[in-house]
Amino acid sequence: MGWMSDENGLDKCAANYTPLTPLSHLRRASHVFAQRLAMVYGEEHRVTYAQYHERCTRLACALSGKGIAPGDVVATLIPNVPAQIEAHFGVPACGGVLNTINTRLDVDTVAYILRHGEAKLILVDSQFLQLAEAACAQMDGPKPTLIEVPDVAAGHPASGRFETYEDMLAGADPSFEWIMPQDEWESLALNYTSGTTGRPKGVVYHHRGAYLMTMGTVVSWRMVLHPIYLTIVPLFHCNGWNHSWMMPLIGGTVVCCRDITAPAIFDAIADEGVTHLGGAPIVLNMLVNAPETERRKFDHQVEVFTAGAPPAPATLSKIETLGFNVTQVYGLTETYGHVTECIWRGEDWDALEKPARAAIKARQGVAFPMMEDITVMDAQMRQIPMDGTCKGEIMIRGNSVMKGYFKNPDATREAFEGGYFHSGDIAVQHGDGYMQIADRAKDIIISGGENISSVEVEGVLMEHDDVLLAAVVAKPDDKWGEVPCAFVELKPGTRPDAAALIAFARGKLAGFKAPKAIVFEELPKTSTGKIQKFELRKKAQMLD
Amino acid sequence: MGWMSDENGLDKCAANYTPLTPLSHLRRASHVFAQRLAMVYGEEHRVTYAQYHERCTRLACALSGKGIAPGDVVATLIPNVPAQIEAHFGVPACGGVLNTINTRLDVDTVAYILRHGEAKLILVDSQFLQLAEAACAQMDGPKPTLIEVPDVAAGHPASGRFETYEDMLAGADPSFEWIMPQDEWESLALNYTSGTTGRPKGVVYHHRGAYLMTMGTVVSWRMVLHPIYLTIVPLFHCNGWNHSWMMPLIGGTVVCCRDITAPAIFDAIADEGVTHLGGAPIVLNMLVNAPETERRKFDHQVEVFTAGAPPAPATLSKIETLGFNVTQVYGLTETYGHVTECIWRGEDWDALEKPARAAIKARQGVAFPMMEDITVMDAQMRQIPMDGTCKGEIMIRGNSVMKGYFKNPDATREAFEGGYFHSGDIAVQHGDGYMQIADRAKDIIISGGENISSVEVEGVLMEHDDVLLAAVVAKPDDKWGEVPCAFVELKPGTRPDAAALIAFARGKLAGFKAPKAIVFEELPKTSTGKIQKFELRKKAQMLD
Repeated sequence: MGWMSDENGLDKCAANYTPLTPLSHLRRASHVFAQRLAMVYGEEHRVTYAQYHERCTRLACALSGKGIAPGDVVATLIPNVPAQIEAHFGVPACGGVLNTINTRLDVDTVAYILRHGEAKLILVDSQFLQLAEAACAQMDGPKPTLIEVPDVAAGHPASGRFETYEDMLAGADPSFEWIMPQDEWESLALNYTSGTTGRPKGVVYHHRGAYLMTMGTVVSWRMVLHPIYLTIVPLFHCNGWNHSWMMPLIGGTVVCCRDITAPAIFDAIADEGVTHLGGAPIVLNMLVNAPETERRKFDHQVEVFTAGAPPAPATLSKIETLGFNVTQVYGLTETYGHVTECIWRGEDWDALEKPARAAIKARQGVAFPMMEDITVMDAQMRQIPMDGTCKGEIMIRGNSVMKGYFKNPDATREAFEGGYFHSGDIAVQHGDGYMQIADRAKDIIISGGENISSVEVEGVLMEHDDVLLAAVVAKPDDKWGEVPCAFVELKPGTRPDAAALIAFARGKLAGFKAPKAIVFEELPKTSTGKIQKFELRKKAQMLD
Repeated sequence: MGWMSDENGLDKCAANYTPLTPLSHLRRASHVFAQRLAMVYGEEHRVTYAQYHERCTRLACALSGKGIAPGDVVATLIPNVPAQIEAHFGVPACGGVLNTINTRLDVDTVAYILRHGEAKLILVDSQFLQLAEAACAQMDGPKPTLIEVPDVAAGHPASGRFETYEDMLAGADPSFEWIMPQDEWESLALNYTSGTTGRPKGVVYHHRGAYLMTMGTVVSWRMVLHPIYLTIVPLFHCNGWNHSWMMPLIGGTVVCCRDITAPAIFDAIADEGVTHLGGAPIVLNMLVNAPETERRKFDHQVEVFTAGAPPAPATLSKIETLGFNVTQVYGLTETYGHVTECIWRGEDWDALEKPARAAIKARQGVAFPMMEDITVMDAQMRQIPMDGTCKGEIMIRGNSVMKGYFKNPDATREAFEGGYFHSGDIAVQHGDGYMQIADRAKDIIISGGENISSVEVEGVLMEHDDVLLAAVVAKPDDKWGEVPCAFVELKPGTRPDAAALIAFARGKLAGFKAPKAIVFEELPKTSTGKIQKFELRKKAQMLD
């Protein structure tokens, strides 16, 4: 260890040590980029960094005034509008822990998250007020204070039944002193992942990890000062891959996007000059398939990070001619979002034909700069041969890995066994070390960028009186990438039809999680009785 | 503090916590950028990242084999050639602390540094062998093992009297396991600064600070992947502003530059495609004043960081037309190099006339992204009015501030009083917060990018039998920026001439520190007997 012969007087002090936190980026930007445009939403909301900082300060003050103490959880049910982004700074600036909840979830799951996360307060967009109220009504234990975030321009006016976000801000002190972390390991955010078992797990982020994620992403996304970023990735997914926390670091402008449509995206590029966006391959499909009338011309190149599933080669070919450069990235909620990227080796690959280029772009690639080691290992945690054929599990070590699962030390211990985070994703590694996902060990179905736990859907189907056994796998889908397809073994003598079973599932699950196709048959099993999902996936590929 | 209601199982572990160190950058680059060109020196030395990593590994192994244990100091007396850069990774990779010594220093000072730093081993370029041997001969206590680094192409072949660097590497194990820091606060480098008192102080860097310096510099220098960096800033100055540690992070190429001449710089830009370089204003002057025959044409823009003194407006105007974009940065050895930058606000300043642009570019600007707070304060450590007139001291807080001075806890405590590093530099702050240095409180003279302590020079002059009192200030100089000018009050009845006194000083000081002009007069003093250096500076400005 590199301690010198005499380290007397060489300790940490206020002058030479500051806990790493993304809060520092906005504090600096409020001085360095004070008059630059920080955020845009529609015609009305155009704020500078000085104003953005003031709004976050007011939010922190207001939350503090409502009794939010350091370590308390503040939840949100908001799409990608300014309040959701401001919560990323305002909540931690009063010491709170931000819990952005997926607005597409069902009442039962939202109630579970609120109870498990112990949210003291929830900011709710008027569109999702019914969901929030139903969840609060259903949950056990103390219920969170509800603050309403109306969006009149989008057709969601205030209900009149709750204090509104803007009223709360108006009454707060713009000179409130931010509560900065004293230890960079303090908790910053709580994100529930669908996981593989019935109930979602609460992934805890710390300030250090988010800070380093922002520093590494600047490098990986080849960003210089003042990018214009369109928020397509929902902020309730890994806090939008931490991009909101990154923008003040580089004096960027965030362009909010409430509803993800091709015209909205093309307009933002053409009118606001968007330079960067991230999104699932379904977003790329949307752009490629947009009719001529919905497209807009622009003469700069837009850098796109895509993740969730490899984009189809046909999509890649088409979108590049439209002015987008696509980079495949890979990560999980447990890793703050993307931690690997398919770094493009122009000198080797620029001259390749389109199909070969697309095949490479479908790789998940190599570690981001802030990560220490990401590789593929066999069951004994040995490096697999890098031959493009041998399979193993992607294993992740580095500073942008979660603290662990909230109130679930057993799951945390299991996830971190042997000093790496076990991703659960099965991959090969090419000769140059680039990883490529071959299978998903955890049976996650990715539909329109949303993770669906097959186990959760199976659980619901199994609740139906007629169902003996259910196995849910991904079925390829032109629009959504994948949709859930259920194989069901019925109890003897029963004959429900598929539509009835789908309706049953929809009654208990968020709409996107319900199976889109059902096949009745005896399920193929191994000698030990384990369902052979591999066989079912092959069958699902064949369906219409 | 942001600790949640239940933090059970959310501790640091190998999966989610790695001490920050620039060593990680080269480890990652050896995989991610394995076949990319990492370093160029002359015709012969062109190595990839895989090879660069292997050479550093061999160096670490060899040092370890020679008994260098973690925490031991390894010194160098080498110009900017590959061995000096490899030492930046190879020394810490065996747990050692790197002490790059200024090759322009005198024997006495080098001996002092070797003794005070307790170097166990020193790598010495053949050109500086005489200096190193004389220093070793003169020093008290255990002497370092000397390894010679010949440079045949540059006319400095091996003496034959010491083991050579390449022989040492050839005998080492390329699979040696790097010794990574277990605590990011461990010491990484030791850099002696001229300071203000007679003897230099040993500034200690830690791994965390250097890592964050590299991350912040990518943002500030607006770098994307694969820059081509020319090493003009000596690596014995703040480790070349940490740029060697940064390059592997972005897969850049380092082009070594042993002797700084206009043809060498233009050739590197034209032949190797250099995109970035750093240097004192004297380097800019050299380029601007180079005869047409020494210039080369190139059609890209070269980004230049300059520091030490503001470049003259005339220089700035000329160099921009040659294809260079200059950014003024500011920092000290105590801050790992640059920590403020004059971020260019194009939307406000692009349209200004050249003199107005040059005036702005002469500002030291605002904090780098990895710094927490850099501002100007009065003697009571209160923020000064930002009016461009009031003066105060630049105060610095952040993660790229030294651990402290080696074996000098009193000086460390004084430097960090009140939770900020006291820079000693006097500045004004403009309305937008941009700082501009107005005076140097510590009387440092900056000559050709080298710091000269006026107190040190005064001390030598005072050793002369005829001298009663000596005060040294900066005199403006077209070539060197500043040179030392001495005002001397003689003892009654003595009449030495200026040439003799300069020769006397040259015998005791490095050549660049000796005064270039001497004025004999009674020194102006305050009522309390303090020399009015302010008056002397005015006089020095008037001299021919």
